[in-house]
Amino acid sequence: MRKAFHDELDRITADLVEMTRLARSAMSRATTALLDADVALAESVIDADADLDRLREHLDDTAIDLLALQQPVATDLRMVVTAMRMSADLERMGDLARHVAKIARLRYPNPAVPAEYRSVIVDMGRAAETIVLKAGDVIVTRDIEGARAVDREDDTMDDLHRRLVERIVAEGRDHGTETAVDLTLIARYYERYADHAVSVAERVIYLVTGQYDGDAESSHEDREDVVLGS
Amino acid sequence: MRKAFHDELDRITADLVEMTRLARSAMSRATTALLDADVALAESVIDADADLDRLREHLDDTAIDLLALQQPVATDLRMVVTAMRMSADLERMGDLARHVAKIARLRYPNPAVPAEYRSVIVDMGRAAETIVLKAGDVIVTRDIEGARAVDREDDTMDDLHRRLVERIVAEGRDHGTETAVDLTLIARYYERYADHAVSVAERVIYLVTGQYDGDAESSHEDREDVVLGS
Repeated sequence: MRKAFHDELDRITADLVEMTRLARSAMSRATTALLDADVALAESVIDADADLDRLREHLDDTAIDLLALQQPVATDLRMVVTAMRMSADLERMGDLARHVAKIARLRYPNPAVPAEYRSVIVDMGRAAETIVLKAGDVIVTRDIEGARAVDREDDTMDDLHRRLVERIVAEGRDHGTETAVDLTLIARYYERYADHAVSVAERVIYLVTGQYDGDAESSHEDREDVVLGS
Repeated sequence: MRKAFHDELDRITADLVEMTRLARSAMSRATTALLDADVALAESVIDADADLDRLREHLDDTAIDLLALQQPVATDLRMVVTAMRMSADLERMGDLARHVAKIARLRYPNPAVPAEYRSVIVDMGRAAETIVLKAGDVIVTRDIEGARAVDREDDTMDDLHRRLVERIVAEGRDHGTETAVDLTLIARYYERYADHAVSVAERVIYLVTGQYDGDAESSHEDREDVVLGS
Protein backbone atom coordinates (compact mmCIF):
# COMPACT_ATOMS: atom_id res chain seq x y z
CA MET A 1 0.00 0.00 0.00
CA ARG A 2 2.82 2.41 0.78
CA LYS A 3 4.31 1.69 -2.63
CA ALA A 4 0.97 2.20 -4.36
CA PHE A 5 0.55 5.46 -2.46
CA HIS A 6 3.93 6.76 -3.48
CA ASP A 7 3.42 5.73 -7.09
CA GLU A 8 0.21 7.74 -7.12
CA LEU A 9 1.90 10.66 -5.45
CA ASP A 10 4.64 10.56 -8.09
CA ARG A 11 1.98 10.78 -10.76
CA ILE A 12 0.45 13.78 -9.05
CA THR A 13 3.86 15.42 -8.88
CA ALA A 14 4.38 14.76 -12.58
CA ASP A 15 1.00 16.35 -13.31
CA LEU A 16 1.95 19.41 -11.27
CA VAL A 17 5.17 19.77 -13.24
CA GLU A 18 3.22 19.41 -16.48
CA MET A 19 0.88 22.14 -15.24
CA THR A 20 3.85 24.46 -14.68
CA ARG A 21 4.96 23.69 -18.23
CA LEU A 22 1.54 24.53 -19.66
CA ALA A 23 1.26 27.67 -17.54
CA ARG A 24 4.70 28.78 -18.69
CA SER A 25 3.98 28.11 -22.34
CA ALA A 26 0.67 29.97 -22.04
CA MET A 27 2.23 33.14 -20.61
CA SER A 28 5.16 32.99 -23.00
CA ARG A 29 2.86 32.79 -26.02
CA ALA A 30 0.44 35.35 -24.57
CA THR A 31 3.33 37.80 -24.24
CA THR A 32 4.28 37.26 -27.88
CA ALA A 33 0.66 37.59 -29.00
CA LEU A 34 0.42 40.85 -27.08
CA LEU A 35 3.63 42.31 -28.46
CA ASP A 36 3.07 41.17 -32.06
CA ALA A 37 -0.70 41.76 -32.12
CA ASP A 38 -0.88 38.14 -33.28
CA VAL A 39 -4.55 37.24 -33.03
CA ALA A 40 -4.12 33.61 -34.11
CA LEU A 41 -1.57 33.06 -31.37
CA ALA A 42 -3.83 34.82 -28.87
CA GLU A 43 -6.68 32.49 -29.86
CA SER A 44 -4.48 29.46 -29.40
CA VAL A 45 -3.55 30.57 -25.87
CA ILE A 46 -7.21 31.15 -25.04
CA ASP A 47 -8.20 27.71 -26.38
CA ALA A 48 -5.30 25.87 -24.75
CA ASP A 49 -6.37 26.99 -21.29
CA ALA A 50 -8.93 24.19 -21.32
CA ASP A 51 -6.03 21.68 -21.24
CA LEU A 52 -4.76 23.18 -18.02
CA ASP A 53 -8.26 23.15 -16.55
CA ARG A 54 -8.68 19.49 -17.47
CA LEU A 55 -5.32 18.56 -16.03
CA ARG A 56 -6.21 20.29 -12.79
CA GLU A 57 -9.48 18.40 -12.64
CA HIS A 58 -7.72 15.12 -13.30
CA LEU A 59 -5.11 15.86 -10.66
CA ASP A 60 -7.72 16.78 -8.06
CA ASP A 61 -9.76 13.66 -8.82
CA THR A 62 -6.65 11.54 -8.39
CA ALA A 63 -5.89 13.30 -5.12
CA ILE A 64 -9.40 12.74 -3.77
CA ASP A 65 -9.31 9.08 -4.79
CA LEU A 66 -6.00 8.78 -3.02
CA LEU A 67 -7.49 10.25 0.15
CA ALA A 68 -10.45 7.89 -0.05
CA LEU A 69 -8.59 4.70 -0.91
CA GLN A 70 -5.30 5.10 0.91
CA GLN A 71 -6.42 7.29 3.80
CA PRO A 72 -3.02 8.85 4.29
CA VAL A 73 -2.12 10.60 7.54
CA ALA A 74 0.55 13.03 8.73
CA THR A 75 3.02 14.09 6.04
CA ASP A 76 1.43 11.97 3.33
CA LEU A 77 -1.91 13.62 3.96
CA ARG A 78 -0.36 17.08 3.88
CA MET A 79 1.32 16.28 0.58
CA VAL A 80 -1.96 15.37 -1.05
CA VAL A 81 -3.77 18.45 0.29
CA THR A 82 -0.85 20.65 -0.74
CA ALA A 83 -0.88 19.21 -4.27
CA MET A 84 -4.52 20.27 -4.63
CA ARG A 85 -3.66 23.78 -3.50
CA MET A 86 -0.80 23.96 -5.97
CA SER A 87 -3.05 22.80 -8.78
CA ALA A 88 -5.42 25.66 -7.94
CA ASP A 89 -2.52 28.15 -8.17
CA LEU A 90 -1.32 26.73 -11.47
CA GLU A 91 -4.77 26.69 -13.02
CA ARG A 92 -5.16 30.33 -12.03
CA MET A 93 -1.83 31.15 -13.67
CA GLY A 94 -3.23 29.74 -16.90
CA ASP A 95 -6.28 31.97 -16.52
CA LEU A 96 -4.07 35.01 -16.13
CA ALA A 97 -2.12 34.13 -19.29
CA ARG A 98 -5.44 33.76 -21.08
CA HIS A 99 -6.47 37.24 -19.89
CA VAL A 100 -3.31 38.72 -21.37
CA ALA A 101 -4.11 36.93 -24.65
CA LYS A 102 -7.66 38.26 -24.56
CA ILE A 103 -6.46 41.84 -24.40
CA ALA A 104 -4.28 41.15 -27.46
CA ARG A 105 -7.31 39.74 -29.27
CA LEU A 106 -9.59 42.56 -28.19
CA ARG A 107 -7.35 45.29 -29.58
CA TYR A 108 -6.40 43.44 -32.78
CA PRO A 109 -5.45 44.59 -35.38
CA ASN A 110 -4.04 47.36 -33.21
CA PRO A 111 -1.32 46.50 -30.72
CA ALA A 112 -2.59 46.86 -27.14
CA VAL A 113 0.89 47.91 -26.02
CA PRO A 114 2.37 51.17 -27.35
CA ALA A 115 5.88 50.88 -28.77
CA GLU A 116 7.57 52.57 -25.82
CA TYR A 117 6.06 50.06 -23.38
CA ARG A 118 7.21 46.99 -25.30
CA SER A 119 10.46 46.52 -23.43
CA VAL A 120 8.86 46.45 -20.00
CA ILE A 121 6.35 43.85 -21.22
CA VAL A 122 9.23 41.80 -22.62
CA ASP A 123 10.87 41.98 -19.19
CA MET A 124 7.67 41.00 -17.39
CA GLY A 125 7.22 38.05 -19.74
CA ARG A 126 10.77 36.92 -19.03
CA ALA A 127 10.32 37.31 -15.28
CA ALA A 128 7.11 35.25 -15.53
CA GLU A 129 8.91 32.47 -17.40
CA THR A 130 11.82 32.40 -14.98
CA ILE A 131 9.63 32.26 -11.92
CA VAL A 132 7.38 29.47 -13.16
CA LEU A 133 10.39 27.45 -14.32
CA LYS A 134 11.90 27.74 -10.85
CA ALA A 135 8.59 26.86 -9.23
CA GLY A 136 8.40 23.73 -11.38
CA ASP A 137 11.91 22.71 -10.31
CA VAL A 138 11.08 23.21 -6.67
CA ILE A 139 8.03 20.94 -6.91
CA VAL A 140 10.39 18.13 -7.89
CA THR A 141 13.47 18.89 -5.83
CA ARG A 142 11.71 20.13 -2.67
CA ASP A 143 14.71 22.37 -2.29
CA ILE A 144 14.08 25.05 0.31
CA GLU A 145 16.74 27.39 -1.03
CA GLY A 146 15.25 27.05 -4.51
CA ALA A 147 11.85 27.88 -3.11
CA ARG A 148 13.20 31.01 -1.47
CA ALA A 149 14.80 32.00 -4.77
CA VAL A 150 11.31 32.01 -6.31
CA ASP A 151 10.31 34.63 -3.77
CA ARG A 152 13.31 36.74 -4.67
CA GLU A 153 12.47 36.40 -8.36
CA ASP A 154 9.07 37.80 -7.51
CA ASP A 155 10.78 40.97 -6.31
CA THR A 156 11.92 41.51 -9.90
CA MET A 157 8.34 41.25 -11.07
CA ASP A 158 7.15 43.61 -8.34
CA ASP A 159 9.75 46.18 -9.39
CA LEU A 160 8.70 45.93 -13.03
CA HIS A 161 5.06 46.24 -12.00
CA ARG A 162 5.67 49.26 -9.81
CA ARG A 163 7.62 51.08 -12.48
CA LEU A 164 5.06 50.26 -15.15
CA VAL A 165 2.15 51.61 -13.10
CA GLU A 166 4.11 54.77 -12.30
CA ARG A 167 4.71 55.28 -16.01
CA ILE A 168 1.08 54.64 -16.89
CA VAL A 169 0.05 57.40 -14.49
CA ALA A 170 2.81 59.78 -15.55
CA GLU A 171 2.37 59.30 -19.30
CA GLY A 172 -1.31 58.49 -19.44
CA ARG A 173 -2.31 61.54 -21.40
CA ASP A 174 0.07 60.61 -24.21
CA HIS A 175 -1.75 57.37 -24.95
CA GLY A 176 -5.34 57.79 -23.89
CA THR A 177 -7.34 56.17 -21.19
CA GLU A 178 -8.10 52.93 -23.02
CA THR A 179 -4.40 52.15 -23.17
CA ALA A 180 -3.99 53.13 -19.51
CA VAL A 181 -6.79 50.73 -18.54
CA ASP A 182 -5.33 47.92 -20.68
CA LEU A 183 -1.84 48.41 -19.30
CA THR A 184 -3.12 48.55 -15.70
CA LEU A 185 -4.82 45.19 -16.15
CA ILE A 186 -1.90 43.65 -18.06
CA ALA A 187 0.48 44.73 -15.30
CA ARG A 188 -1.80 43.18 -12.72
CA TYR A 189 -2.05 39.88 -14.61
CA TYR A 190 1.71 39.43 -14.75
CA GLU A 191 2.09 40.37 -11.12
CA ARG A 192 -0.63 37.97 -9.97
CA TYR A 193 0.87 35.23 -12.13
CA ALA A 194 4.16 35.63 -10.28
CA ASP A 195 2.37 35.73 -6.91
CA HIS A 196 0.80 32.35 -7.60
CA ALA A 197 4.20 30.92 -8.52
CA VAL A 198 5.50 32.21 -5.18
CA SER A 199 2.56 30.56 -3.50
CA VAL A 200 3.50 27.21 -5.10
CA ALA A 201 7.04 27.58 -3.81
CA GLU A 202 5.85 28.54 -0.33
CA ARG A 203 3.71 25.44 -0.20
CA VAL A 204 6.84 23.39 -0.83
CA ILE A 205 8.56 25.16 2.06
CA TYR A 206 5.54 24.41 4.19
CA LEU A 207 5.60 20.74 3.23
CA VAL A 208 9.26 20.37 4.03
CA THR A 209 9.52 22.49 7.14
CA GLY A 210 5.96 22.36 8.46
CA GLN A 211 5.77 26.12 8.50
CA TYR A 212 5.56 29.04 6.17
CA ASP A 213 8.52 31.31 5.88
CA GLY A 214 8.10 34.42 7.97
CA ASP A 215 9.05 36.59 5.04
CA ALA A 216 7.20 34.70 2.43
CA GLU A 217 3.88 34.33 4.20
CA SER A 218 2.48 37.61 3.04
CA SER A 219 3.11 36.85 -0.61
CA HIS A 220 0.18 34.48 -0.69
CA GLU A 221 -1.60 37.71 -1.07
CA ASP A 222 -0.95 40.09 -3.84
CA ARG A 223 1.08 43.18 -3.55
CA GLU A 224 -0.50 45.76 -5.71
CA ASP A 225 -0.59 48.06 -2.71
CA VAL A 226 3.17 48.32 -2.96
CA VAL A 227 2.75 49.28 -6.56
CA LEU A 228 0.10 51.86 -5.99
CA GLY A 229 2.02 53.38 -3.13
CA SER A 230 3.96 56.05 -4.93
CA MET B 1 -17.49 8.16 15.00
CA ARG B 2 -20.18 9.27 12.54
CA LYS B 3 -21.58 11.55 15.20
CA ALA B 4 -18.15 12.97 15.98
CA PHE B 5 -17.55 13.48 12.28
CA HIS B 6 -20.77 15.36 11.76
CA ASP B 7 -20.21 17.50 14.82
CA GLU B 8 -16.85 18.50 13.40
CA LEU B 9 -18.37 19.15 10.01
CA ASP B 10 -21.00 21.36 11.62
CA ARG B 11 -18.22 23.36 13.22
CA ILE B 12 -16.53 23.76 9.87
CA THR B 13 -19.79 24.92 8.32
CA ALA B 14 -20.23 27.44 11.13
CA ASP B 15 -16.70 28.72 10.48
CA LEU B 16 -17.48 29.10 6.76
CA VAL B 17 -20.58 31.12 7.58
CA GLU B 18 -18.55 33.26 9.95
CA MET B 19 -16.05 33.82 7.14
CA THR B 20 -18.84 35.05 4.85
CA ARG B 21 -19.87 37.42 7.64
CA LEU B 22 -16.34 38.79 8.00
CA ALA B 23 -15.90 39.05 4.21
CA ARG B 24 -19.20 40.91 3.93
CA SER B 25 -18.38 43.30 6.76
CA ALA B 26 -14.96 43.95 5.24
CA MET B 27 -16.30 44.90 1.81
CA SER B 28 -19.14 46.92 3.30
CA ARG B 29 -16.75 48.97 5.43
CA ALA B 30 -14.20 49.23 2.62
CA THR B 31 -16.88 50.72 0.38
CA THR B 32 -17.75 53.29 3.04
CA ALA B 33 -14.08 54.10 3.60
CA LEU B 34 -13.63 54.58 -0.13
CA LEU B 35 -16.67 56.84 -0.53
CA ASP B 36 -16.07 58.89 2.61
CA ALA B 37 -12.28 59.01 2.33
CA ASP B 38 -12.33 57.66 5.89
CA VAL B 39 -8.76 56.63 6.58
CA ALA B 40 -9.44 55.26 10.08
CA LEU B 41 -12.13 52.98 8.71
CA ALA B 42 -9.83 51.93 5.87
CA GLU B 43 -7.14 51.04 8.43
CA SER B 44 -9.59 48.98 10.42
CA VAL B 45 -10.56 46.99 7.32
CA ILE B 46 -6.90 46.40 6.49
CA ASP B 47 -6.14 45.25 10.06
CA ALA B 48 -9.23 43.06 10.35
CA ASP B 49 -8.21 40.95 7.38
CA ALA B 50 -5.88 39.04 9.69
CA ASP B 51 -8.97 37.67 11.49
CA LEU B 52 -10.24 36.17 8.26
CA ASP B 53 -6.81 34.72 7.51
CA ARG B 54 -6.65 33.14 10.97
CA LEU B 55 -10.14 31.71 10.67
CA ARG B 56 -9.23 30.17 7.34
CA GLU B 57 -6.12 28.64 8.86
CA HIS B 58 -8.12 27.27 11.77
CA LEU B 59 -10.76 25.85 9.44
CA ASP B 60 -8.19 24.19 7.21
CA ASP B 61 -6.37 22.71 10.21
CA THR B 62 -9.67 21.31 11.48
CA ALA B 63 -10.39 19.88 8.03
CA ILE B 64 -7.00 18.20 7.77
CA ASP B 65 -7.34 16.75 11.28
CA LEU B 66 -10.74 15.45 10.28
CA LEU B 67 -9.26 13.76 7.21
CA ALA B 68 -6.50 12.20 9.30
CA LEU B 69 -8.57 11.05 12.26
CA GLN B 70 -11.88 10.14 10.69
CA GLN B 71 -10.72 9.15 7.23
CA PRO B 72 -14.00 10.01 5.55
CA VAL B 73 -14.86 8.63 2.13
CA ALA B 74 -17.36 9.41 -0.62
CA THR B 75 -19.65 12.38 0.14
CA ASP B 76 -18.14 13.03 3.54
CA LEU B 77 -14.70 13.30 1.99
CA ARG B 78 -15.95 15.63 -0.73
CA MET B 79 -17.56 17.85 1.89
CA VAL B 80 -14.30 18.30 3.74
CA VAL B 81 -12.31 19.00 0.57
CA THR B 82 -14.99 21.41 -0.63
CA ALA B 83 -14.94 23.27 2.68
CA MET B 84 -11.22 23.90 2.23
CA ARG B 85 -11.83 25.27 -1.25
CA MET B 86 -14.58 27.54 0.03
CA SER B 87 -12.32 28.84 2.77
CA ALA B 88 -9.77 29.77 0.09
CA ASP B 89 -12.44 31.71 -1.82
CA LEU B 90 -13.63 33.52 1.30
CA GLU B 91 -10.14 34.42 2.42
CA ARG B 92 -9.50 35.88 -1.02
CA MET B 93 -12.70 37.93 -0.77
CA GLY B 94 -11.29 39.47 2.39
CA ASP B 95 -8.07 40.30 0.52
CA LEU B 96 -10.05 42.06 -2.19
CA ALA B 97 -11.95 44.14 0.39
CA ARG B 98 -8.60 45.05 1.92
CA HIS B 99 -7.35 46.17 -1.50
CA VAL B 100 -10.31 48.51 -1.86
CA ALA B 101 -9.54 49.90 1.60
CA LYS B 102 -5.89 50.37 0.63
CA ILE B 103 -6.81 52.57 -2.30
CA ALA B 104 -8.93 54.70 0.06
CA ARG B 105 -5.95 54.99 2.40
CA LEU B 106 -3.50 55.70 -0.40
CA ARG B 107 -5.45 58.68 -1.74
CA TYR B 108 -6.41 60.10 1.64
CA PRO B 109 -7.19 62.94 2.33
CA ASN B 110 -8.46 63.06 -1.25
CA PRO B 111 -11.31 60.78 -2.23
CA ALA B 112 -10.17 58.09 -4.68
CA VAL B 113 -13.59 58.15 -6.34
CA PRO B 114 -14.75 61.33 -8.11
CA ALA B 115 -18.23 62.54 -7.13
CA GLU B 116 -19.89 61.39 -10.36
CA TYR B 117 -18.67 57.81 -9.84
CA ARG B 118 -19.98 57.52 -6.30
CA SER B 119 -23.33 56.03 -7.21
CA VAL B 120 -21.87 53.15 -9.23
CA ILE B 121 -19.54 52.32 -6.36
CA VAL B 122 -22.52 52.38 -3.97
CA ASP B 123 -24.27 49.95 -6.32
CA MET B 124 -21.22 47.66 -6.55
CA GLY B 125 -20.92 47.67 -2.76
CA ARG B 126 -24.58 46.67 -2.45
CA ALA B 127 -24.23 43.95 -5.07
CA ALA B 128 -21.19 42.62 -3.19
CA GLU B 129 -23.14 42.51 0.08
CA THR B 130 -26.14 40.80 -1.48
CA ILE B 131 -24.08 38.15 -3.19
CA VAL B 132 -22.02 37.22 -0.14
CA LEU B 133 -25.14 37.11 2.04
CA LYS B 134 -26.74 34.70 -0.41
CA ALA B 135 -23.58 32.61 -0.59
CA GLY B 136 -23.57 32.37 3.21
CA ASP B 137 -27.18 31.17 3.20
CA VAL B 138 -26.44 28.57 0.57
CA ILE B 139 -23.58 27.12 2.62
CA VAL B 140 -26.12 26.33 5.34
CA THR B 141 -29.21 25.43 3.32
CA ARG B 142 -27.48 23.57 0.46
CA ASP B 143 -30.30 24.91 -1.64
CA ILE B 144 -29.54 24.50 -5.34
CA GLU B 145 -31.95 27.20 -6.42
CA GLY B 146 -30.39 29.59 -3.94
CA ALA B 147 -26.97 28.72 -5.32
CA ARG B 148 -28.12 29.50 -8.85
CA ALA B 149 -29.52 32.81 -7.62
CA VAL B 150 -25.99 33.74 -6.55
CA ASP B 151 -24.88 33.29 -10.13
CA ARG B 152 -27.67 35.57 -11.34
CA GLU B 153 -26.71 38.15 -8.74
CA ASP B 154 -23.25 38.08 -10.23
CA ASP B 155 -24.74 39.23 -13.53
CA THR B 156 -25.71 42.46 -11.76
CA MET B 157 -22.11 42.94 -10.69
CA ASP B 158 -20.84 42.17 -14.18
CA ASP B 159 -23.18 44.78 -15.65
CA LEU B 160 -22.02 47.38 -13.16
CA HIS B 161 -18.42 46.48 -13.88
CA ARG B 162 -18.87 46.68 -17.65
CA ARG B 163 -20.56 50.06 -17.50
CA LEU B 164 -17.98 51.43 -15.09
CA VAL B 165 -15.06 50.42 -17.30
CA GLU B 166 -16.78 51.91 -20.35
CA ARG B 167 -17.20 55.17 -18.47
CA ILE B 168 -13.61 55.17 -17.28
CA VAL B 169 -12.44 54.92 -20.89
CA ALA B 170 -14.96 57.45 -22.20
CA GLU B 171 -14.42 60.05 -19.48
CA GLY B 172 -10.81 59.36 -18.61
CA ARG B 173 -9.51 62.70 -19.73
CA ASP B 174 -11.84 64.52 -17.36
CA HIS B 175 -10.24 62.96 -14.29
CA GLY B 176 -6.68 62.11 -15.16
CA THR B 177 -4.92 58.80 -15.49
CA GLU B 178 -4.34 58.18 -11.79
CA THR B 179 -8.09 58.12 -11.22
CA ALA B 180 -8.56 55.88 -14.28
CA VAL B 181 -6.00 53.43 -12.89
CA ASP B 182 -7.60 53.49 -9.41
CA LEU B 183 -11.09 52.97 -10.79
CA THR B 184 -9.93 50.15 -13.09
CA LEU B 185 -8.51 48.29 -10.11
CA ILE B 186 -11.45 49.08 -7.82
CA ALA B 187 -13.85 47.76 -10.48
CA ARG B 188 -11.81 44.60 -10.79
CA TYR B 189 -11.72 44.03 -7.02
CA TYR B 190 -15.50 44.16 -6.71
CA GLU B 191 -15.96 41.93 -9.73
CA ARG B 192 -13.48 39.34 -8.47
CA TYR B 193 -15.10 39.46 -5.04
CA ALA B 194 -18.41 38.51 -6.62
CA ASP B 195 -16.75 35.78 -8.73
CA HIS B 196 -15.43 34.12 -5.60
CA ALA B 197 -18.91 34.23 -4.03
CA VAL B 198 -20.22 32.51 -7.18
CA SER B 199 -17.48 29.95 -6.82
CA VAL B 200 -18.62 29.21 -3.24
CA ALA B 201 -22.19 28.70 -4.47
CA GLU B 202 -21.04 26.47 -7.33
CA ARG B 203 -19.17 24.29 -4.90
CA VAL B 204 -22.43 23.77 -3.03
CA ILE B 205 -24.11 22.73 -6.29
CA TYR B 206 -21.24 20.37 -6.90
CA LEU B 207 -21.56 18.87 -3.44
CA VAL B 208 -25.26 18.29 -3.80
CA THR B 209 -25.45 17.18 -7.42
CA GLY B 210 -21.97 15.79 -7.98
CA GLN B 211 -21.46 18.07 -10.93
CA TYR B 212 -20.92 21.67 -11.76
CA ASP B 213 -23.67 23.57 -13.47
CA GLY B 214 -23.03 23.83 -17.18
CA ASP B 215 -23.67 27.54 -17.10
CA ALA B 216 -21.92 28.23 -13.91
CA GLU B 217 -18.72 26.38 -14.57
CA SER B 218 -17.05 29.23 -16.36
CA SER B 219 -17.64 31.65 -13.53
CA HIS B 220 -14.90 30.04 -11.50
CA GLU B 221 -12.87 32.16 -13.78
CA ASP B 222 -13.19 35.84 -13.94
CA ARG B 223 -14.98 37.71 -16.61
CA GLU B 224 -13.11 40.87 -17.23
CA ASP B 225 -12.95 39.91 -20.87
CA VAL B 226 -16.67 40.55 -21.07
CA VAL B 227 -16.05 43.91 -19.59
CA LEU B 228 -13.22 44.86 -21.85
CA GLY B 229 -15.06 43.62 -24.91
CA SER B 230 -16.82 46.75 -25.99
